[in-house]
Amino acid sequence: MGLPGVGWLSRSLAERLQRRLLRAGVRVELWNGASPYTVERRPVGTLVLRDARTLWGLVYNPHLQFGESYMRGSLEVRGLLEPVLEALSRLSPAPTRRERLHLRFALPNSFRRARRNVHHHYDLGNDFYEGWLDRQMLYTCAYFDHPDVPLEDAQVAKMDMVSRKLRLQPGESVIEAGCGWGALALHMARRYGVRVKAFNISREQIAYARARAAREGLAGQVEFIDDDYRNVVSECDVFVSVGMLEHVGIRHFSSLAAVLARVVRRTCGRGLLHFIGRDVPRPLNAWTRRRIFPGGYPPALAEVATRVLAPARMSVLDVENLRLHYARTLAHWSSRFASIGDQVRARYGDEFKRAWELYLAGSEAAFATGSLQLFQVVFAPFEAEPPYWTRADIYGNAPSERWFTATR
Amino acid sequence: MGLPGVGWLSRSLAERLQRRLLRAGVRVELWNGASPYTVERRPVGTLVLRDARTLWGLVYNPHLQFGESYMRGSLEVRGLLEPVLEALSRLSPAPTRRERLHLRFALPNSFRRARRNVHHHYDLGNDFYEGWLDRQMLYTCAYFDHPDVPLEDAQVAKMDMVSRKLRLQPGESVIEAGCGWGALALHMARRYGVRVKAFNISREQIAYARARAAREGLAGQVEFIDDDYRNVVSECDVFVSVGMLEHVGIRHFSSLAAVLARVVRRTCGRGLLHFIGRDVPRPLNAWTRRRIFPGGYPPALAEVATRVLAPARMSVLDVENLRLHYARTLAHWSSRFASIGDQVRARYGDEFKRAWELYLAGSEAAFATGSLQLFQVVFAPFEAEPPYWTRADIYGNAPSERWFTATR
Repeated sequence: MGLPGVGWLSRSLAERLQRRLLRAGVRVELWNGASPYTVERRPVGTLVLRDARTLWGLVYNPHLQFGESYMRGSLEVRGLLEPVLEALSRLSPAPTRRERLHLRFALPNSFRRARRNVHHHYDLGNDFYEGWLDRQMLYTCAYFDHPDVPLEDAQVAKMDMVSRKLRLQPGESVIEAGCGWGALALHMARRYGVRVKAFNISREQIAYARARAAREGLAGQVEFIDDDYRNVVSECDVFVSVGMLEHVGIRHFSSLAAVLARVVRRTCGRGLLHFIGRDVPRPLNAWTRRRIFPGGYPPALAEVATRVLAPARMSVLDVENLRLHYARTLAHWSSRFASIGDQVRARYGDEFKRAWELYLAGSEAAFATGSLQLFQVVFAPFEAEPPYWTRADIYGNAPSERWFTATR
Repeated sequence: MGLPGVGWLSRSLAERLQRRLLRAGVRVELWNGASPYTVERRPVGTLVLRDARTLWGLVYNPHLQFGESYMRGSLEVRGLLEPVLEALSRLSPAPTRRERLHLRFALPNSFRRARRNVHHHYDLGNDFYEGWLDRQMLYTCAYFDHPDVPLEDAQVAKMDMVSRKLRLQPGESVIEAGCGWGALALHMARRYGVRVKAFNISREQIAYARARAAREGLAGQVEFIDDDYRNVVSECDVFVSVGMLEHVGIRHFSSLAAVLARVVRRTCGRGLLHFIGRDVPRPLNAWTRRRIFPGGYPPALAEVATRVLAPARMSVLDVENLRLHYARTLAHWSSRFASIGDQVRARYGDEFKRAWELYLAGSEAAFATGSLQLFQVVFAPFEAEPPYWTRADIYGNAPSERWFTATR
């Protein structure tokens, strides 16, 4: 093979990197067009490295430096991005030593830090998200009755699925922690007749949600509160949080537990947590944590059970893993994002555009390979009767719904 | 009030006991007919104590001595047994100090000990269980589409629910760990066309199951193996265990994990664990452990996730809590058991009959109050694609079933 015009150190690093990537079927190509790839098999794709610094980064801190180099353009992917990321994701199924250290020593999210972290991501401008999310601006995993359902419908189906799992009854009070642009709160109020207090610390999102509530005549039924969910005081029948737990950070699970214990009515209350999680504890990918979601942590199911639900004296009633639905959702977002790529580049610059492209494709790969999971967990206080007899009513078979209304 | 004819020590103990039981609305009555109960409220029931030893036991080790005294007849319950047990169960929602010690220092179940423990309970004689179980001899939680469904139907529905959750396909290989009298193994073979290897260490149950397989012409499809499930060697598409995990003991979870890691096909396998569990770690009630299920331990969901599934590199796909279904199942068993009470007493003696009466009513109370949970957990290897798209197919809505067969 040989790598003419490349120094011995780079050559040795490139060979080391290529050996590692061989199992994934990913080819390495250096700045001079040379490649240490020798095997016949058709590669999934090729990483084109523009300089020695990029090579060095990929060898010594790949989880962070892959993203950094991709973002600044010194790493290109020849071939489709998502399959390459999927192949790479399968290469490191277990937490690295660096990740295990991070698990032990990462800093918690204070109130101020939480606000800064959220601002970093969610206050990019509503119109940025309008460019590639669905019409109702849902920035969480959708629910596809079938993989071919359009994204718009799948997002409405998700809101219905959440509402049905909670068995919302007209007149009940709901607290939503982390309400995004308000779609779910408004949907629950409109379709299920509940009253909602919805919390969010992203100013841009709250302003958007309030305007929408006023426009739809739901301002009397849905209150959007610009505050940390940890300041919630009133009692409620139902607690719901979709896509917020992964921003809480494990060191704040006890304060979420305290909130649940305080606000969910003990006799008849229940709740749902919809969150990005893991099979085993592992920090969020280092690059995603630096550039996309500072403070983010996708917890293992057992961490949520022992650190949030058990201390809040909540019993697990139902868990569903929807990871393939998030892979599908992200595929939709990626292709919509690609269609507005030029506008994004013009407004936010090339680095930003490439960072988001990578983040969307990388997340899709992580959900597709099972590196990330999407859990919906329904719970109720220890002493409460479960609010349903079977799950059949969720899927349109009514017997348990009748049972439910008859006995409560 | 006063307790004439009762010494000062007994009087003081009786008052202490009564104070404790007041919150549960349970009255205490001593051997001379006297009672320290003073409140007006109509009691849920009355505990009639026949001697001072019983009183002493109820004060100092109620979790064990309630059962011991009830069994030997020195404690009677006036009023319905189950509501009294329910009221008492609500009195101790958290593990006691004694229970926390047990959690730390209990002995593991060796192979021999496991066999002895199982023999203790399951080899009482098949005709004993035939007296009060359903026709197919299912001694685990049934699944009631509606609370009024007869037990026979609910047990068949349970077998279908388990099979559907596993998305059994004709020709697949299934390993069942702890197969009881074989009903589920035979059902899966008959209705879903799978091949089953079913393990059990109860000789009486295995003999019964083999005879039934031969009678139904399923002996070629279902192999009943008289061995510890830990000796399983062959690979399988599907691993299922209904009502065995609670006999494994937490110190053997690692060997169950090793079995799962070894036998479940990594690319397309999946499994289901159906078990009695807890919201928080707590040993089985001391009396039930001594008299009914030596070595039994109902684990918390998080314990199963971290000590069985994660080490086996299995991802949680679906969890359903069916505790009210077990309360209902036990109510059926109790009333059937009551109808053969005289025969049981004649054959096994009064202590035995009272022990079983208490165990069935006490378990019903525990599931009704949420002291015990019943979890069904579906899982698949980290690297396997989840074997379905949504749960709708379980409930008779076909789209995901079509998706399933189309893409595999």
